[in-house]
Amino acid sequence: MADLYLALLHHPVYDKTGAVVTTAVTNLDVHDIARMARTFGVRAYYVCTPVDTLRRLVARIMRHWERGPGATYNTTRRDALALVRLAPELDAAIAEIEDETGHLPRLIATSARGGPDRLSFDALRARLDAPGPPVLLVFGTGWGLAREVMDRVDDVLEPISGVGPYNHLSVRAAAAIMLDRLRNGR
Amino acid sequence: MADLYLALLHHPVYDKTGAVVTTAVTNLDVHDIARMARTFGVRAYYVCTPVDTLRRLVARIMRHWERGPGATYNTTRRDALALVRLAPELDAAIAEIEDETGHLPRLIATSARGGPDRLSFDALRARLDAPGPPVLLVFGTGWGLAREVMDRVDDVLEPISGVGPYNHLSVRAAAAIMLDRLRNGR
Repeated sequence: MADLYLALLHHPVYDKTGAVVTTAVTNLDVHDIARMARTFGVRAYYVCTPVDTLRRLVARIMRHWERGPGATYNTTRRDALALVRLAPELDAAIAEIEDETGHLPRLIATSARGGPDRLSFDALRARLDAPGPPVLLVFGTGWGLAREVMDRVDDVLEPISGVGPYNHLSVRAAAAIMLDRLRNGR
Repeated sequence: MADLYLALLHHPVYDKTGAVVTTAVTNLDVHDIARMARTFGVRAYYVCTPVDTLRRLVARIMRHWERGPGATYNTTRRDALALVRLAPELDAAIAEIEDETGHLPRLIATSARGGPDRLSFDALRARLDAPGPPVLLVFGTGWGLAREVMDRVDDVLEPISGVGPYNHLSVRAAAAIMLDRLRNGR
């Protein structure tokens, strides 16, 4: 099976006006996505932010669960957070994955918006089930990944549809659904 | 189609030692589950806590998004939070659903643990797609729903499996996956 990695980008992403911004790190994004990463066989989960202070904050949260009081309080949380890695930007995550696996990862962006040539869940699932280069699934915060990210990825995954036009899931919820579909089918 | 309702119980649930406790309300549980409820065609989402102060806190969050600054800042959030209802306990939610629909809802508990006679996602999906009484899907916080809840429900939904034995999703992530499976198949 191809290795699956996740990255959650806090920059460059859009705000509601369409400006490119850096969002704050949400503590529960670290925990929730780490837990689903462990559940669904993700090799590592990169929290990407250019803000040093926020990377230090996440490092402190990780230490709490790895070696601090959290390590004995909740061992399943420790197992999940062991998958979290910090990176200042997407390229740092890509470089680390290349070092680790010997291959540049295929970059797959996620988006709540449809568009031409979206990669289907079935197609990505089949790719993950076969031998091949690692896959890095990229999630945006705020109002979504900026164009400069979308323009460089190999593919964009199809959006999640509900029962009507409303489609405003949290990135945590979208990531959970996507991982379930990629591992368990849809 | 049968009406689908959700309830998130903060009591009676287990803590990690197996004691029955009342958990605090997590702000993001209100937001995330409301957003997925709107996306996946849920009729209403009950946040159940016996603690008056916490119900007032949630009511204040709802007001912020319904009529306060949030209503114009983010209209999609307002649309989602309009589905949130407060109840001191499960029975209050059941009574309200009976008032609203004229039928007692079928109670379906969710659990991360397997067991005998679990209801499959396919079976519940088929039930929701056909005419019938409303369905109330009950989620626990903390370490899961207490036995007194499990003993009174009509069915328990099968747990979500990952790629191995690890199965410690947040309730937000589990709810997202379950709703996706119930509406879009698995």
